[in-house]
Amino acid sequence: MPEIRQNRATKEWVIIATERAKRPDDFKPKEKKKSLPSFDKDCPFCPGSEHQTPPELFSYRKRGTEKDKPGWWVRIIPNKFPALISEVELSRVTEGFFLKMEGFGRHEVIIESPEHNLSLANMSLKQVEEVCLVYRQRYIELSSEKNIKMIIIFRNHGLAAGTSLLHPHSQLIALPLVPTHIRHLLEEAMRYYDDHGYCVFCDMLKEELEFKKRVILETESFVAFQPFASKVPFGIWIVPKTHNAGFGNITADEAKGLAFVLREILGRIYSKLSDPDYNLVLHTAPITDSNEDYYHWYVQILPRLSTPAGFELGSGVYINTTLPEETANFLSS
Amino acid sequence: MPEIRQNRATKEWVIIATERAKRPDDFKPKEKKKSLPSFDKDCPFCPGSEHQTPPELFSYRKRGTEKDKPGWWVRIIPNKFPALISEVELSRVTEGFFLKMEGFGRHEVIIESPEHNLSLANMSLKQVEEVCLVYRQRYIELSSEKNIKMIIIFRNHGLAAGTSLLHPHSQLIALPLVPTHIRHLLEEAMRYYDDHGYCVFCDMLKEELEFKKRVILETESFVAFQPFASKVPFGIWIVPKTHNAGFGNITADEAKGLAFVLREILGRIYSKLSDPDYNLVLHTAPITDSNEDYYHWYVQILPRLSTPAGFELGSGVYINTTLPEETANFLSS
Repeated sequence: MPEIRQNRATKEWVIIATERAKRPDDFKPKEKKKSLPSFDKDCPFCPGSEHQTPPELFSYRKRGTEKDKPGWWVRIIPNKFPALISEVELSRVTEGFFLKMEGFGRHEVIIESPEHNLSLANMSLKQVEEVCLVYRQRYIELSSEKNIKMIIIFRNHGLAAGTSLLHPHSQLIALPLVPTHIRHLLEEAMRYYDDHGYCVFCDMLKEELEFKKRVILETESFVAFQPFASKVPFGIWIVPKTHNAGFGNITADEAKGLAFVLREILGRIYSKLSDPDYNLVLHTAPITDSNEDYYHWYVQILPRLSTPAGFELGSGVYINTTLPEETANFLSS
Repeated sequence: MPEIRQNRATKEWVIIATERAKRPDDFKPKEKKKSLPSFDKDCPFCPGSEHQTPPELFSYRKRGTEKDKPGWWVRIIPNKFPALISEVELSRVTEGFFLKMEGFGRHEVIIESPEHNLSLANMSLKQVEEVCLVYRQRYIELSSEKNIKMIIIFRNHGLAAGTSLLHPHSQLIALPLVPTHIRHLLEEAMRYYDDHGYCVFCDMLKEELEFKKRVILETESFVAFQPFASKVPFGIWIVPKTHNAGFGNITADEAKGLAFVLREILGRIYSKLSDPDYNLVLHTAPITDSNEDYYHWYVQILPRLSTPAGFELGSGVYINTTLPEETANFLSS
C-alpha cells in the first residue's frame, strides 16, 4: 500500500511507493566502478599540478613547504570556473520587469587529500577531521565578510552526482542573498516553533531516538537516520544533538565528531551499496539567523540511486521506492 | 561576468555562470542515440501487448475494434506500478510526531502512439493534437472526482530524464493534497498580484514579447520562450496568452494550439540538439484555485543537458552555464 508522508521540518510530502518497491540489495550496481590510481599526473588537484589551479587560499601543509607546491594534505583554492566572483558590484538592478544582480560571491574548492583515489569513506579519521575543521574554518572566515548572506558547503561524489573531477573534493559557495527555497524552509520551521515552542529538528531527533527504527548511528553529539519522509532511497540526515541553527557556531570538537559520523556513514554506504554516487549538503541557517531558536544545521546525504523526473520537478513531491525503516535497518547492521 | 537573475513568477534565483559558459553547439551529444524500431514485441505499450498492461481507462480507437486490443491510436491505462491508488482511506494519521496518509490518488499512463519509435517531436500534428485533447479530457474528468486536489501531467523523455520505457508516453498523477512546493509558488504569485493588480505570468509574457530576444515562437494563443532566469540550458516555458490559472479551463481549440507549439518546439530541440533527454511538466493551479486571477498554467520543458548537484539540492538555486538570450536565438532560427 503506498503511503504519503510529510517531513515535518521541511513540510515536504513524499510518496513511499511500495507497489514499485525495491529491496535494499536491488540498488547494488551491475558493474563495479573502475578503480582509480592514487596519483594522476593529468589531475589538476594532484600534488605537482598546483600551478594548474588558482593560487591557494589556505592549506594544511608540512612545515617548510611552499604555498602552491606539494607538501599539503588539505588545500583550499578558488574554483577555476567560479559560479560567483568577488570583484563585482553588489546591487540589484531592474531591467524593465526583470530583476538581477552581478554575480557577487565566492566559489571555493576544498581538496580533501593529496591522494587521487580516496574519498571521505576510506580516508583516515584524522584526515576527515581535517576536512571538517576546514569546513568550519572557511565557514567562519567567510561569514564575517561583508555582504555574504548564506554559505552552502557541498560535495558531489561521482559523475551521476554532477562532478567533473574525481579527485576527492568538496565545494563552498557563498551567496550575497538568501535563496527563496531557504526562506521557505525557515518559515516552515518558524511556524512549528511558534506552535510548539521547540525547534522542529530537536523534536524530530527526540522522536527518532525513541522510535529507533530509522536510526543508523548515534554518537555523543550526532544522530544519523533516514528521515520518516526520505525523498530518495538511502537518503540520510546527520543531525547534531545540540540545538544550533548556524554551522559556524560549532566547536572544533563538534567538527571532529561530525568527521567520525561522516566517515562511518559514508563508509557503510560505500561498502554496502558498492560506492554509489551521492550528493552531500550541509544545511545551515543564513548567517544573520545563526542563533535562531527555530532552525538547526544538519548534513544531508542523497545517494543518486534514482532519477527525479517530471513529477518531482513539477510538484516538489518525490516518489521513493523504498521504505526508510527497511533501508535504515540495512545500513545499521 | 556571472549574473544572478530572479524569476519574478517563482521568485527563484538562478546563477548565469558565464565564466563556465558553453556555446549552444557544445550540448550536442558525442554519440547519436540508437534508433528504435517502430514495433517491439517485448514492449508492453506496443499494439498486441495490451494484455500486459492494466485494462485501459479510455482510448481513441478504430470503429469496431475491441477494448484492450489493437486498433487504438491513443490509449490511457492505469500505471502498472502506481505511485498512488484509489482504493484506500483518505485521512491524515499521526504516528507520534509524524504525519502521513495512505497513498490515495491516481497514476495513469497516456500511450501517445502505437508506434514504438515516435515522439511528440516527430508525430503528425493530428496525433499530437489527440494527445493534448486527451490531457485535457483526463484532467477535466479527474478534476471532478472527490478528494483529488491537484493534477500533474508530465512526460519523461529518455533514460536520463527518468523513464524506463522508451515507447512514447506521458503520465498523469492526481494527488489528494496540494504540495508545499506548489503552495509556495501560489503564494509568490499572489503577492505579485496584490502589489501590482496583474498576474505575474501575464506581465512576464508582455515583457518577453516586447523584449523579443528570448522568444522562440509566438502563435495566436501561445508564446514559447526561454525565461530570463532559466534554471537549465535550453529550459523553455510555453505560456498561453489568455489568462487562465487552471489547465482544465482550456477549450479544445486551445489544446490543439498547444499541440502545434509543443510539436514545433520539441521538434527544434530534437533536430538542433540531437534529441536530448528532457522532462516536460504541465504546471497548473490546484483544482479549487482554477479560476484565480493570480496564477497561470503553462508548460515547462527541461532538457537534461546538465546535472543539478549538491549546490542546487541544498540552495534551490540553479547554476546555468548558458545565456538564455543566446540559446533562445539558437532555437529561434
